[in-house]
Amino acid sequence: MIGIGVVGYGYWGPNLARCFAETEGCRLVAIADGDAAALTRAGKRHPSATQYTRFDDLLADPRIDAIVIATPVHTHFALAQAALASGRHALVEKPMTESAAQAEALIALAAQRGLILMVDHTFVYTPAIQKIKQLIASGELGEVYYYDSVRVNLGLFQSDVNVIWDLAVHDLAILQYVLDDRPATVSANGVRHVAGSPENMAHLTVYYESGPVAHLSVNWLAPVKVRQTLIGGSRKMIVYNELEPSEKIKVYDSGVVCAPAGETVDRMRVSYRTGDMWAPRIDVKEALLTEAEHFIACIRDGATPITDGRVGLSVVETLEAATQSMRRRGHPFQLSQILRAS
Amino acid sequence: MIGIGVVGYGYWGPNLARCFAETEGCRLVAIADGDAAALTRAGKRHPSATQYTRFDDLLADPRIDAIVIATPVHTHFALAQAALASGRHALVEKPMTESAAQAEALIALAAQRGLILMVDHTFVYTPAIQKIKQLIASGELGEVYYYDSVRVNLGLFQSDVNVIWDLAVHDLAILQYVLDDRPATVSANGVRHVAGSPENMAHLTVYYESGPVAHLSVNWLAPVKVRQTLIGGSRKMIVYNELEPSEKIKVYDSGVVCAPAGETVDRMRVSYRTGDMWAPRIDVKEALLTEAEHFIACIRDGATPITDGRVGLSVVETLEAATQSMRRRGHPFQLSQILRAS
Amino acid sequence: MIGIGVVGYGYWGPNLARCFAETEGCRLVAIADGDAAALTRAGKRHPSATQYTRFDDLLADPRIDAIVIATPVHTHFALAQAALASGRHALVEKPMTESAAQAEALIALAAQRGLILMVDHTFVYTPAIQKIKQLIASGELGEVYYYDSVRVNLGLFQSDVNVIWDLAVHDLAILQYVLDDRPATVSANGVRHVAGSPENMAHLTVYYESGPVAHLSVNWLAPVKVRQTLIGGSRKMIVYNELEPSEKIKVYDSGVVCAPAGETVDRMRVSYRTGDMWAPRIDVKEALLTEAEHFIACIRDGATPITDGRVGLSVVETLEAATQSMRRRGHPFQLSQILRAS
Amino acid sequence: MIGIGVVGYGYWGPNLARCFAETEGCRLVAIADGDAAALTRAGKRHPSATQYTRFDDLLADPRIDAIVIATPVHTHFALAQAALASGRHALVEKPMTESAAQAEALIALAAQRGLILMVDHTFVYTPAIQKIKQLIASGELGEVYYYDSVRVNLGLFQSDVNVIWDLAVHDLAILQYVLDDRPATVSANGVRHVAGSPENMAHLTVYYESGPVAHLSVNWLAPVKVRQTLIGGSRKMIVYNELEPSEKIKVYDSGVVCAPAGETVDRMRVSYRTGDMWAPRIDVKEALLTEAEHFIACIRDGATPITDGRVGLSVVETLEAATQSMRRRGHPFQLSQILRAS
Repeated sequence: MIGIGVVGYGYWGPNLARCFAETEGCRLVAIADGDAAALTRAGKRHPSATQYTRFDDLLADPRIDAIVIATPVHTHFALAQAALASGRHALVEKPMTESAAQAEALIALAAQRGLILMVDHTFVYTPAIQKIKQLIASGELGEVYYYDSVRVNLGLFQSDVNVIWDLAVHDLAILQYVLDDRPATVSANGVRHVAGSPENMAHLTVYYESGPVAHLSVNWLAPVKVRQTLIGGSRKMIVYNELEPSEKIKVYDSGVVCAPAGETVDRMRVSYRTGDMWAPRIDVKEALLTEAEHFIACIRDGATPITDGRVGLSVVETLEAATQSMRRRGHPFQLSQILRAS
Repeated sequence: MIGIGVVGYGYWGPNLARCFAETEGCRLVAIADGDAAALTRAGKRHPSATQYTRFDDLLADPRIDAIVIATPVHTHFALAQAALASGRHALVEKPMTESAAQAEALIALAAQRGLILMVDHTFVYTPAIQKIKQLIASGELGEVYYYDSVRVNLGLFQSDVNVIWDLAVHDLAILQYVLDDRPATVSANGVRHVAGSPENMAHLTVYYESGPVAHLSVNWLAPVKVRQTLIGGSRKMIVYNELEPSEKIKVYDSGVVCAPAGETVDRMRVSYRTGDMWAPRIDVKEALLTEAEHFIACIRDGATPITDGRVGLSVVETLEAATQSMRRRGHPFQLSQILRAS
Repeated sequence: MIGIGVVGYGYWGPNLARCFAETEGCRLVAIADGDAAALTRAGKRHPSATQYTRFDDLLADPRIDAIVIATPVHTHFALAQAALASGRHALVEKPMTESAAQAEALIALAAQRGLILMVDHTFVYTPAIQKIKQLIASGELGEVYYYDSVRVNLGLFQSDVNVIWDLAVHDLAILQYVLDDRPATVSANGVRHVAGSPENMAHLTVYYESGPVAHLSVNWLAPVKVRQTLIGGSRKMIVYNELEPSEKIKVYDSGVVCAPAGETVDRMRVSYRTGDMWAPRIDVKEALLTEAEHFIACIRDGATPITDGRVGLSVVETLEAATQSMRRRGHPFQLSQILRAS
Repeated sequence: MIGIGVVGYGYWGPNLARCFAETEGCRLVAIADGDAAALTRAGKRHPSATQYTRFDDLLADPRIDAIVIATPVHTHFALAQAALASGRHALVEKPMTESAAQAEALIALAAQRGLILMVDHTFVYTPAIQKIKQLIASGELGEVYYYDSVRVNLGLFQSDVNVIWDLAVHDLAILQYVLDDRPATVSANGVRHVAGSPENMAHLTVYYESGPVAHLSVNWLAPVKVRQTLIGGSRKMIVYNELEPSEKIKVYDSGVVCAPAGETVDRMRVSYRTGDMWAPRIDVKEALLTEAEHFIACIRDGATPITDGRVGLSVVETLEAATQSMRRRGHPFQLSQILRAS
């Protein structure tokens, strides 16, 4: 029975605590949070879990085998480092760290100690994204041309990270998973609409090594909530709408047809065809539960998590590069440059 | 009675011909097109209009006071120049020309001859865009923060212009009209998915001089048709969906509220509020008819068209800069540089 | 070449005239309307068609082989009777007549004279309804359980017929076509909200002989336009939304599963399953053009139209019975009683 | 501190237990359920509540002042009767009882003992329905013409009640609340599609005493979930879509305009107008929590609940009449007849 300690019981921590409490093969041993009100809420839901106001006390609890970190981004590195250094496996909320250098240090430490280091890229564990990965891997879409996402809403402005680190992080994790590819170049633009706050609206273009291009539109100051992604392929195309209660994924048998050169004239060289649309049934299992089970299985079997430290690093590198590009109004940054710099 | 000659009776020309035929104060005198089938179709609809297979013959027709140009983009300059040189007013389909230099030459010629030069930026004449201009001008939105548009569909790939010149042109014309501002810097990314064709997918960020930022997503290879624009302001925000049969414009009384500095802590400094939504009734008058009436009124009264040559020039400049930026993966271009270069 | 005369150039007549003008094998010879303004409009569109202000003059025109009747309902019988009596084929706008007795008289007259009598049940000729008929006929849906339609909007109140005769007529024609069945019993409720006007809101339940039940909701005083039909079958179910620009038909692989008796307890006896959704591509051909071609083909080949007089009669019978039921607050009427009565 | 006992911890009971656990002024004392698994789930969530496998034991618990009944419909009467007879206040899940006679008996018993008898008509306590009541009461809609609801989905077939008792019950409770009126006549049609099961699809028309007409479409065998209600008034109209995450209520400033008699001709006598649409912001408080607070306040203050026994009786009467009408294919039943019969 793997003992789990959760640090951070604010917005996301309660979901992680609940899922580990419901997962076989582990036990929610303790919850740490510096805020008394948060611990009171934790006590109502998880009366049998020990409560700590200091992380160090949780760290000292010998029943704990793995630590789940759900605290503000700027604390991720120090907490994860301490967890790994004390011999505990670590699951870190997204984004993994504030910098690629920090991410690399954690990866090295986990490898050295033979511990599991996993990032909470929740979307990767949703049935919808897993279905999209299947559709791409099976060749149903043909060559993947692009991934174009709009992820906007009226949301809480964060004080320590800009909107890219809060929202685009989801798409970068999804892309890494469904394309099985690495970002090569990023160009980003973004603005702040509240003086003194981080950028709240941004647009990223990310060129992947093997060809696909991703575009991400993220915004904390939008009148409506939109979560829609278009994925274009040479054979078929997908519309993925996360907010649809059913029919989250629609597959369109549509595309362009190129006439052989010289056969037709001018603007008729490229024509298009439209066919049927198909919405596969999507399972309804909660992603975070799947993720918790995966973390426990990786610990038990010594397996590499789907969203391991290297995936977390790649996402953080891209976030860093995008932030730099944004401050130079779209000037493109090659990811390898960043990687070397870190 | 102002005599109208239309050159080009392909995709858009028939709409222009029909609208001028229905407009008071003018008469559709002649239609020119090199394609016999096009002239046959024109003859069925407009039996009393003279037909010409050569533009020069239309130019020689003394009954014609104004020429409406609805031909491929690369012919706009030569045809408009000839029309103006012969003393005729000119209405040119969008985009006005292939280059800013061409646009400037036409503006100079029209000024010198005292003729009306107008660009067919149709959207500017839609009741929905006119309502949006009113809402902005009246201060209803407060300070305009951004304009974020998605204009994608599965469409005919054009052979002589890329998707920016075909689709983003609409938004640039709308922006010029509703913001009453000039673009300062543009950063664009785009790709082609069919070898030998122009870029079919692009994303532009345009920084306007007085503050607002525009982002335009355009794509000829999308699985579904989307025409949705979010406009963010300091007081209210708009969702403009051109495809909605009614309720094209929704005004949201939502936004962010900044607490006075020091009053609250950390991430609570910026909170948000949501209020009512309101969808003003929009008139249903056809935009092209309004535009035809405006062209005739400007000729009659010697007035400056809303979408005059200078507006057309500004849009073409931005299209040129965006195309250059796109080929350097988002590298930002300042519009004044372009302007000087041209 | 079959000569066509159109009587009535108000709301719908122009569409019929245009379609026959574009159809091979026939010629639009003449248009009759008592209203001078209507004839002026007709002259602009169809300069070569002769214009008559009196129906009798059209009737006397020897070039006319078939008469298309697009006048108010209360005139259908007299005009169609005159057309048939003079040896002309007739296409009558829906609903065919004001009463079943009138419909039977027209059928008898057409049969006696060997002429084609067809009703303009336009929806039957739409690609969407033809696709639904295919899906039902091929057994894709299994046994058809129900057809449940909402057809409401804010519309012009008619003065000579109630909303059932204006809107439910469409669904009754569609049902006749896709089910290939006859209505057995009808129960209807309806109300008027404007004193002195006919009923503007009604709900009909129609029991078909072989089992399916239809429910039709029609309303001239609704805040929004809705055109949505659910069709339930034992194997699959359909959502048909006429207003969707694409994806008008969605086929759901969902339904109920009955456990064998005794195997499970109580409320678990009937469970349900959900599967994929599939939206077949629908052609975009204009229905009225298909209908015009069908009318011409039937005249040429002596074939029976899909929407012949007997179909028109069956629909009118049901409309009569529904109106009677509505005035007795849902009291059910058997259709055979009506049939005998007429 | 009012002691609460909950009987029935199946589908709905857990929600009621949770809400009373969170409500001020009361304490969740005990939970009874005959099913051991249900009690295990109850124990995890409410470790401090006593568990009973027999209702009689809960009844014997002297700490309990009020009993919340969330069991199958056929048990409501016996349980509520026992609760009231033992001097406890009672909150009964909808529908209140299986018959109007049972409902009347409970009302009489509660009155005699001076106890609160309330029905769990949850929708009445939603912010959306309370907003609709406000809009009607304030005269914003003018005279209410109709309420037309579609409430369909693919749902669990119940074994002891038909779809009217399961789904139409919601609308009847809403109508009673927002119209403040009594049903006069009902006509219903319905069918079963699974042999041996209750009717799973039904349509009701309900005529209210002061004029409004309601139409309810309910179905357990629909391909998609729909929860949409149109409410028509002489001044404005409402679209209420319960499934919209925001903008649940849209108010349309549209309607018909009647020209004074004789002023215009024929079909122009009634014209229509369309105006703005407005979606008021709706609070997000959970309805069941509001309901629990109301129950506690009524007990404390001796006040009459909004959804008291008489409201429950009126709804049950209508359900009974609708079921009878349905079995006679729409034959209308007057509610006063039913009332007398019971």
